[in-house]
Amino acid sequence: MDTTVHGGLNYTELKQLGLAPADILDFSANINPLGTAPGVLDAIRQVDPAAYPDPDCLQLRTALGAHLGLTPEHILVGNGATELIHLLARACLQPGARAVIFAPAFGEYEAACHIQGVAPAFVCTRPGSAFRWDLRAALDLLMEIQPALVFLGNPNNPTGAYLSEDSVTQLAAAVQQHGLLVLDEAYLSFVDRRWDSRRLLQRENVVLLRSMTKDHALAGLRLGYLLAAPEVRARIGAFAYSWSVNSLAQVAGIAALENLQHVVMGREAACAGREFLHRELHRMGFSCTSSSANFLLVTVGDARALRRILLLEHGLCVRDCTSFGLPEHIRLGVRVLADCRRLLRALEDVQAAAPGGACNAS
Amino acid sequence: MDTTVHGGLNYTELKQLGLAPADILDFSANINPLGTAPGVLDAIRQVDPAAYPDPDCLQLRTALGAHLGLTPEHILVGNGATELIHLLARACLQPGARAVIFAPAFGEYEAACHIQGVAPAFVCTRPGSAFRWDLRAALDLLMEIQPALVFLGNPNNPTGAYLSEDSVTQLAAAVQQHGLLVLDEAYLSFVDRRWDSRRLLQRENVVLLRSMTKDHALAGLRLGYLLAAPEVRARIGAFAYSWSVNSLAQVAGIAALENLQHVVMGREAACAGREFLHRELHRMGFSCTSSSANFLLVTVGDARALRRILLLEHGLCVRDCTSFGLPEHIRLGVRVLADCRRLLRALEDVQAAAPGGACNAS
Repeated sequence: MDTTVHGGLNYTELKQLGLAPADILDFSANINPLGTAPGVLDAIRQVDPAAYPDPDCLQLRTALGAHLGLTPEHILVGNGATELIHLLARACLQPGARAVIFAPAFGEYEAACHIQGVAPAFVCTRPGSAFRWDLRAALDLLMEIQPALVFLGNPNNPTGAYLSEDSVTQLAAAVQQHGLLVLDEAYLSFVDRRWDSRRLLQRENVVLLRSMTKDHALAGLRLGYLLAAPEVRARIGAFAYSWSVNSLAQVAGIAALENLQHVVMGREAACAGREFLHRELHRMGFSCTSSSANFLLVTVGDARALRRILLLEHGLCVRDCTSFGLPEHIRLGVRVLADCRRLLRALEDVQAAAPGGACNAS
Repeated sequence: MDTTVHGGLNYTELKQLGLAPADILDFSANINPLGTAPGVLDAIRQVDPAAYPDPDCLQLRTALGAHLGLTPEHILVGNGATELIHLLARACLQPGARAVIFAPAFGEYEAACHIQGVAPAFVCTRPGSAFRWDLRAALDLLMEIQPALVFLGNPNNPTGAYLSEDSVTQLAAAVQQHGLLVLDEAYLSFVDRRWDSRRLLQRENVVLLRSMTKDHALAGLRLGYLLAAPEVRARIGAFAYSWSVNSLAQVAGIAALENLQHVVMGREAACAGREFLHRELHRMGFSCTSSSANFLLVTVGDARALRRILLLEHGLCVRDCTSFGLPEHIRLGVRVLADCRRLLRALEDVQAAAPGGACNAS
């Protein structure tokens, strides 16, 4: 069983604490604040769950291809982007291969490397750099160790940092011809001013990884896809098992592409909530990173203790970033303004109850 | 992308032929003839797809444990039994390891071995044996090559053969202590007189593989589980990725355990349909194997041609068994009696149109 630490409610922990999942307001996952589009919910309800899914996801790949200006042969659909991360590791990481992760990062990259018996190298941010990487040092590392696989989140989770096209293009050029740079764009839909990464697909060593669980709020159904040159896609897909993408997720994905205005509204809601949270947290004395995505990284002092107080005393779940190597930080997935206000009131209560305690404005 | 041949509609083929999936009556999948239980459908509709699934499937494992008289630590839930087949291959098949498959068999066993770089050995049935294995020869093979992994379907797909407890116990004893015998019981719920395989879990080298997609008609949502000694389960689960089992499947699984009468009725419907088809096909001159499951293997002559005629001219899909190594056989998943009658009429038409043609009573 997977033991990688992630956002989202920990049902085992809640049971031990005697808490009901339905009573918890979850700021630990980073989902469209508006939830699932009504049109998508309607489409899901029409599906007969008795029939097998299309193992090739043909209709969804055709719809995605039309939306993205690519052929279905460029697209591999997965049971969440997480399945695709593991397929990438299987396809690229033979014994003795090297992998690089731009850190801090989504924990599943490292987990997938470890299952393949590979200990990845990390490109880390320097203290005081506001979680920005040293591009020159990153390029040197890539050219030195010639990794078979590189994971780079853009925007990055959990910092919200968003690299420019020029930076990513330089990084791709530094990855060897037979290596793969995986640009994980799970949160791209929430970025206000984004560049068109599809241009990178002209390179055979770039894979774009996309999630439909965040922008379309389908985390429960699992749905992600990758974009790559057809030969690369075929090489990765050879490791997939049959019917990994359930039929409700496939139908939801097709319906989601007919409800794109919902994503626009979700981005606007996330942006408004993020600016509100950033301003109010700053007013309370907290330091937040500047984020291009629908979440904020906040310096709090003792993240583990604060998470527990908020969960037990306020019914709020935040992401303790200890597993990212950031034990003094929490990550907040932006929700609608009313929920954000409830979170701020709870943080004020914790501050008032124990000045200098877990909730430690810096 | 997976290219293993399976039952269920081939959406790519249907698109090429200009056929709509909704217009096809599918006899190629082996699903509860009554479809999904109404109580399960209601439960699925209550789930918010925006929230992450429980990655540990705790509530479902607890419910399954209570139902089966086992602890949650004995149970690993998968995104269909197919995910678990691939996890088993990853956990057991290191380079140089040996695997054995009792054939003919579900194609995913061999696919999973091949992805691990292992060419499995096969225990084959002898001509004229009505697809029964030679137990003595099978025991000799297991003791000779000491496989790390053995796949045995019980009842077997596509033959419907069902081995006794004594036979399976002998086979388990012949598998080395550090090997695993995987008893795939995907179709067990459809067997009228079944023995209790849970007794085999006292051995650390047996895994019971179960599907909830057939008896509970949840093929679209994907849901399976395995039962094993807790140490074995932990070893296999270490290869899983996060959130592989979607939240609707988890809720459906819990609701299914509260709707077990639906499985009893489905078994009775499948049994009635199977006996009816068997009798009528025999009357028409076809030879069918005796099956303990909800499908029938029928000798037809040219399976590929017959499948195509039934699809194009009658809107019926049957399983051409060429990929099982049986190009003269089709497999029929039993449906309700009205559907079975429609199939028989179509077969009569094909016989009348071309005596001695594809539909060749033996």
